Amino acid sequence: MKRVRLVFSGSGGQGVITAAIILAEAAVIIEGLNATQSQSYGAAARGGATRTDIIISEEEINFPGVTSPNILVCLTQEAYNQYAAVIRPGGLLLTDSRSVTTAKKTDAKHIGLPLYDTVMERIGKPIVYNITMLGALIGITDIVRPESVLAILKERIPPDFLAMNQRAFDLGLVLGAQYQCRL
Amino acid sequence: MKRVRLVFSGSGGQGVITAAIILAEAAVIIEGLNATQSQSYGAAARGGATRTDIIISEEEINFPGVTSPNILVCLTQEAYNQYAAVIRPGGLLLTDSRSVTTAKKTDAKHIGLPLYDTVMERIGKPIVYNITMLGALIGITDIVRPESVLAILKERIPPDFLAMNQRAFDLGLVLGAQYQCRL
Repeated sequence: MKRVRLVFSGSGGQGVITAAIILAEAAVIIEGLNATQSQSYGAAARGGATRTDIIISEEEINFPGVTSPNILVCLTQEAYNQYAAVIRPGGLLLTDSRSVTTAKKTDAKHIGLPLYDTVMERIGKPIVYNITMLGALIGITDIVRPESVLAILKERIPPDFLAMNQRAFDLGLVLGAQYQCRL
Repeated sequence: MKRVRLVFSGSGGQGVITAAIILAEAAVIIEGLNATQSQSYGAAARGGATRTDIIISEEEINFPGVTSPNILVCLTQEAYNQYAAVIRPGGLLLTDSRSVTTAKKTDAKHIGLPLYDTVMERIGKPIVYNITMLGALIGITDIVRPESVLAILKERIPPDFLAMNQRAFDLGLVLGAQYQCRL
């Protein structure tokens, strides 16, 4: 892994920014990589989709924004409609199969997973949806090790909520592991 | 206000990233401005100080990182030591007077406020320290209106914690208002 550019997108309140910060921290604090994590808000953001950019790299990163991501995660149809076009050819598109219907063909590996339905069936709390999404991504790819994310969760999540977050992460890991691929 | 570049710095767990996101959202969602908010993690970040960059502008923003902030907030001595040098001449330096001793003279207006002590005396919960810091900043400057931040707090903070956050914000506003200045 030299450099991975990711965009997480969804709607406000789904926690994509938090998931991005946790991933960046896992990469930097636990794995000793470099990372940036950013949000650009503007005319586009106001209408609808929330978007957060992450870059993870073995080398120094000069520009924190992502133009063309290797990995695009879309949790809503609106986010997909808005951002599907920017994915890098040969990249990975991860969507929630409940919310997103992929219309046009993109030159990317598409994996649709029942992230939301799984969280709601197994845990019943939409608040950890973002952590299941992150688990799925780490299950599919090898950006960082699952233990690195778990170490950050342990640091950041209040004790009362930790077990639920670990469980949400594990659910995602299991869903994603079926589609494992190296970047 | 054409364009304001801010850096919030402190140690991990003080919530500077959350404060930055709340400020950016207030600017964009409530006030119709443009904003970016980013973190760069790397060799520098691992040792110690957490740093988050925000740009707020009436115009579109192309690059989310901040090289030289108009406003630098330092909640720890370590953050001050690391970042004081980058402040823009004529800018504003806001520090917590309990934690930060300003050593060298910078060409900036320096305001030291007892943010932490006030939070602990009045509320007793360090978790809202970041919100008091944000309140102080909005009290001093006119980046966004206090009501815009309160509207975002109402959206983001679970009902059980909202009153405490509003109170923390008000404490900061009152502390900051003594030093009001226009940018």
